[in-house]
Amino acid sequence: MRIADCPLCLRTARTELWSNAHVRVIDAEEPEFPGLTRVIWHDHVREMTDLAESQRHYVMSAVWAVESVMRQHLAPTKVNLAQFGNMVPHLHWHVIPRWTCDPRFPDAIWAPRHDPMPRQADDWAQQRGQTELALPGYHAALREALAALPEAP
Amino acid sequence: MRIADCPLCLRTARTELWSNAHVRVIDAEEPEFPGLTRVIWHDHVREMTDLAESQRHYVMSAVWAVESVMRQHLAPTKVNLAQFGNMVPHLHWHVIPRWTCDPRFPDAIWAPRHDPMPRQADDWAQQRGQTELALPGYHAALREALAALPEAP
Repeated sequence: MRIADCPLCLRTARTELWSNAHVRVIDAEEPEFPGLTRVIWHDHVREMTDLAESQRHYVMSAVWAVESVMRQHLAPTKVNLAQFGNMVPHLHWHVIPRWTCDPRFPDAIWAPRHDPMPRQADDWAQQRGQTELALPGYHAALREALAALPEAP
Repeated sequence: MRIADCPLCLRTARTELWSNAHVRVIDAEEPEFPGLTRVIWHDHVREMTDLAESQRHYVMSAVWAVESVMRQHLAPTKVNLAQFGNMVPHLHWHVIPRWTCDPRFPDAIWAPRHDPMPRQADDWAQQRGQTELALPGYHAALREALAALPEAP
């Protein structure tokens, strides 16, 4: 099912790293949160419990694949997982790499930005640079891991 | 595995609604977010991908049970799911009922509180009251649904 005014149904946004018949994975391209990756169910479904159990299991297997490759390639302090959809009620998961030096840690990325201490700002500039350099390798490994998912949910 | 200074290992906090050998479900008792429910893995595990696949599937089946019963009993506008652990890196899921009139909708509950319009404040006072009245029925149904989960992950 597609909804005419839903940006995730329109599927115009941002770089798709991989997709199959049911799910796609995109680089969120949020400059403040390098590495933020989204797993999007193609159909306009609102909640996880609107999916059949096998479909839920399938979308989560894509989320775990992203988390696993993210940990190997970006080595974040912590991975954050979120499925909200308050603004766009079309099922999507945020897989977010977090570092102790990032401008909102340990708060959620939706919390206000901290006023960083100079040293933290330096650490974050360095970490962000490192993460950006690691993105091509992360994305290549992600495509490979996701290609190994079974096709049918 | 238990960690001496981890509040989720100490297992002292808040009302446990249900638990088995692997997982427990608590009422978060956050006055601002009535109905907020947490699913906590007993062992001190950091990330979902630190669990075996069958264990991940198991903890998510508890999350889906909570979401499903929450929708039936609290009828939120949207369910929000989050697994962060930036402050307490012990695996736990937040299952959060959201309403359009709540003081942070459509932002994440970690975003700054809005300055509500008087009508929205009235709607939220009414919704919060309704939710609080529905909690005993929600919790009873939750215990019943969770008791139907298989014991072994």
